[in-house]
Amino acid sequence: MSVDINELALPDGQIVSDPEEISKLSSDKFTEAIEETSQPLAVIQAKSVEDVQAAVKFANQNQIPVTARGAGTSIVNGSAAEKGGFVIDLTQLNKILEINIPNQYAVVQAGVLNSDLDDEVRKQGYFFSPDPGSKRISSVGGNIATNAGGMSSLKYGTTKQSVVGLQVVLADGRLVELGGKTFKNNAPYDLTDLFVGSEGTLGIITAATVKLLPVPFGNPVTGLATFNDMKQLSVGVQNISGSGLYPSMMEALNKTSIEALDNLEKSDLGKGGAESLLIFQLDVAPAGAVDALKKILAKSGALQVNVTDDPDYAKKIIKIRQDYYQAEAAYGRLIVEDVAVPLSKLPELADFVENLKFTSKVTAFLGGHAGDGNFHPNFAVSKEYAETPADVNEAINKIFKYVQSIGGTISAEHGIGDLKYQWVRPQLGADVVELQRQVKKAFDPNNILNPGRKV
Amino acid sequence: MSVDINELALPDGQIVSDPEEISKLSSDKFTEAIEETSQPLAVIQAKSVEDVQAAVKFANQNQIPVTARGAGTSIVNGSAAEKGGFVIDLTQLNKILEINIPNQYAVVQAGVLNSDLDDEVRKQGYFFSPDPGSKRISSVGGNIATNAGGMSSLKYGTTKQSVVGLQVVLADGRLVELGGKTFKNNAPYDLTDLFVGSEGTLGIITAATVKLLPVPFGNPVTGLATFNDMKQLSVGVQNISGSGLYPSMMEALNKTSIEALDNLEKSDLGKGGAESLLIFQLDVAPAGAVDALKKILAKSGALQVNVTDDPDYAKKIIKIRQDYYQAEAAYGRLIVEDVAVPLSKLPELADFVENLKFTSKVTAFLGGHAGDGNFHPNFAVSKEYAETPADVNEAINKIFKYVQSIGGTISAEHGIGDLKYQWVRPQLGADVVELQRQVKKAFDPNNILNPGRKV
Repeated sequence: MSVDINELALPDGQIVSDPEEISKLSSDKFTEAIEETSQPLAVIQAKSVEDVQAAVKFANQNQIPVTARGAGTSIVNGSAAEKGGFVIDLTQLNKILEINIPNQYAVVQAGVLNSDLDDEVRKQGYFFSPDPGSKRISSVGGNIATNAGGMSSLKYGTTKQSVVGLQVVLADGRLVELGGKTFKNNAPYDLTDLFVGSEGTLGIITAATVKLLPVPFGNPVTGLATFNDMKQLSVGVQNISGSGLYPSMMEALNKTSIEALDNLEKSDLGKGGAESLLIFQLDVAPAGAVDALKKILAKSGALQVNVTDDPDYAKKIIKIRQDYYQAEAAYGRLIVEDVAVPLSKLPELADFVENLKFTSKVTAFLGGHAGDGNFHPNFAVSKEYAETPADVNEAINKIFKYVQSIGGTISAEHGIGDLKYQWVRPQLGADVVELQRQVKKAFDPNNILNPGRKV
Repeated sequence: MSVDINELALPDGQIVSDPEEISKLSSDKFTEAIEETSQPLAVIQAKSVEDVQAAVKFANQNQIPVTARGAGTSIVNGSAAEKGGFVIDLTQLNKILEINIPNQYAVVQAGVLNSDLDDEVRKQGYFFSPDPGSKRISSVGGNIATNAGGMSSLKYGTTKQSVVGLQVVLADGRLVELGGKTFKNNAPYDLTDLFVGSEGTLGIITAATVKLLPVPFGNPVTGLATFNDMKQLSVGVQNISGSGLYPSMMEALNKTSIEALDNLEKSDLGKGGAESLLIFQLDVAPAGAVDALKKILAKSGALQVNVTDDPDYAKKIIKIRQDYYQAEAAYGRLIVEDVAVPLSKLPELADFVENLKFTSKVTAFLGGHAGDGNFHPNFAVSKEYAETPADVNEAINKIFKYVQSIGGTISAEHGIGDLKYQWVRPQLGADVVELQRQVKKAFDPNNILNPGRKV
C-alpha cells in the first residue's frame, strides 16, 4: 500500500494505527463465529461530520476501502473491516442534536445509542419505537444501516418507518441531506428509505431525523398462552391477528425454549404437555379486550391462558420473554439466526428446526416475532468446542435453504453483513442482483464503501 | 418517426392509433389545468404482462418514450404522454390474483381499483388501508406509483407501508419480482420501496403483493371540534397526538371551508365565531377515550365539541368531511393542491393561504390531514374563466415557495407528475438531484420511461 496516511489531515489520536487497537475494531463485538477477519490500514475515530468527510474523500481518492462502524453489535459481522481499508468509528458522534416534541421528531447523530434517545424522549411522554434486543448497546445509526427490527415492529414497523430524514456522507466525501422533517414526502425517489438497510454500502449515515411516537394512553393488556404445539399456537396467532385487536407484541417460543425457561425460572410453563408458548401485549387496549382475548385463546385450543391488565402481573409475563436469551445461553455459546417466513408457515419452520439432527453437543431453539413471521433459530453450542461444529453450520445452511424454498427471507431484521451475502443471489435472482449492483454503482462508482459485501 | 409499429406483434385492437382515442388517454382524466398535452404515437391496451413486456422491449429497441397509465386519476398530470411515445394502458390488467387471509396479503394486478380490492377483502374481515380520496376510481398500481396517501395514512402510513412485493417490467422488457411475501425483509437494497412513488420512471409495475389489515375490534370513537382559529386548532391536534390515543384520522378545515360546508349543509359549524374545524376518529378506542378526548379538547380551547361512540352519530360527523369537496366545488372549478409541512407549522400555512390576495374570482380553501402535516390548499375558480387565471397560478407558486421555506414538501401524497417537477430541484438541491438521476440511469439507461419527468 503506497498511501501515505499522514496526508489525511486529522488531529493526533484520531487515526489509530496500532495493530492491536485496530484489530478490536475490525469485526463485530459479539459475533463469535467470525470466519475471517481482515486487518484494515487504520481506524478513524470521527469526532465530527467533517472528519468523516475528510476520511471518505481521502479514501475515495486513494482507492481505500471504507467500513463505517457504529456500536459493533451486528451479529452477521456487519462491522467486518476490509484488508488495507479504513474503519470509520462513529461512536463519538453521539449527540442528540434536537428533540422537537411539537413536530414529533428528534435529530440525532449516528452514534447515539437507541435507548439513550428512547430514555430521553420518554421523559416527555414520547418513545422511539425501534426496539432491537440490542437497544441498550446499539446505535441509532447502526439500527438504520441494518433496518433493525424488534418486538414492536409488529405494530410500528422496522426502523425504516421511524426514519424521516438522513444526513449522509457520499462516497466522494460530499455531505447531503435526504428526506426532511415532514411525515409525508413524495418528491421521488425516496433515497432515505433506500439508505435504510444499505449497511454502509451506499454512503455513511452521520445523522438522522427520526419520528417519535406518543406513549400509548391507558393500561396495556398483556397475556400468555401455551399450546400443544406450534401448529396450534399458529391458530391462536391467526385468530388474535384477525380479531383487529392490533397487538404491539406477539412472541412465540418452541418446546426447547419452554424447557430452557422452566429450567431457569423453576417454572412450569410446559405443564400439560405444552410445547409452544405465546406472549403478547396490546399497548392500546380497547374496552373488552381481556375477555375477547380469553375467548379467542380458548377457541384456539390454548392450554394455560393468562390475560391481564394488571401492570404488576404484566411485568411477570414480560420478564419471561426478557429472560429467554439468558435461558438459552445456559446451554452453551449462543448462535442467533434471523429469518422471516409468510405468517402461516410458522408450524413448518418449527418442525424443520426441531427435526434437525446433530452429532455434536448443541441445542436448537426457535423463538421470535410470530405476528410478523420473523423467527430466530438459535443454537446453543457446548462450550467445549473452540469453533462452531460443522453440523451446526450445515444446519444453519439447511434452514436458509428451506426458508427460501417456502417464500421466506434469510434476513428479517439483522441484515446481511459479512456472513450472509452468499444467500442473497439465490433469494433475489440474477436480474435483481444486477439491479442492486447498478444502484450501488450509482452511489459509489469507485466501489470503496464496504466493497467486499458482494451481492 | 421511422418506426414501423406493425413490427410490434400484438393482436388487432390492442394498438390504438386513432388520434382522437389516443388523445383521450394522453393526460389525466380530471386535471383541468393541463398546460400542454403531447400526442403520443400509440396507446397499447395491455391485456397481459407479456403485452407490457413486448411493448416496452420494442420501445427500448426503438428509443420510443413510454408512459404507463392506470386509471388516469392523478391530479398532477401524472399520465401525461410523451410526444411520439407509447402510452401503455394497464386498466385491463384488473384481476385480483390471490387473497391470502392466513398470510394477510393479496396479490393484485396493477389495474385493480383500490376499492374493488378493499370491498373484496372486507368480506373476510380485513381491509386495504391506503384510502386516497380517489379510491373508488383509482388503481392500486397508480396508488403505488404515486405512493398515494389518504386520511388513514396518519395511522397506517402511505401506500408504501402496504406494499410487500412488486412485479415490474424493466426498461428493457425483462420481468422481475421485487420483495416477497414476508413482512420483514432485510436483503438489501429495498428496491420495492424505491419503486413506490417512482411514477413510471424506473419500470412499469404490473402486479403487487399488498398487506391486508384486520378490521379493528370494537366501536370507533368519532369526534368534531371547532376552534377560534387554526392556531387554537393546532393546540388541539398537538394535545390529541400527545395523548397516545392514536387517532386513525385527524382532519382540519379552515374558515372558508367551514363557510362552504355551512352553505351546503345548512349547518352552523361556524357558530360562536369558529374559524377552524377538526374531525377525528379512533378506529381502536381504549376504555375512557370519549371522556379523555372531551377533556383534552376543553383544555385546548375548543368551542363546539362532540365526541361519540354511537355509530349513527359518527356517520353524521364523517359525512361532513366527505361532503367537503362538494362544498368547495359549489364555488367554482376546483384546483386541488397537496403539500406537507412540519406538524407545528399548520397555523402559519393557514395564515399564508388566507392572506393570499386575488383580483380574479376565486376562493382559497385549506383542509387536510392535520395529524401528519399534509394539507390541500384548494382553489375554486369561477367557471367564467376558460383558463386558470394568472393570479391563481401565482398563488400556487407562492405557496410552494413558502412551504419549502418552512421545511415542507411540495408533494405529500399526489406525486410530482408533469406539473411539479420544476419544484423538485430547489427542494432537494443539486447533489440529491444528481443522485436521483444516477438511480434513474441505473434502471433506465436509454431514458425511455417517462423521459420528460425531469428532476
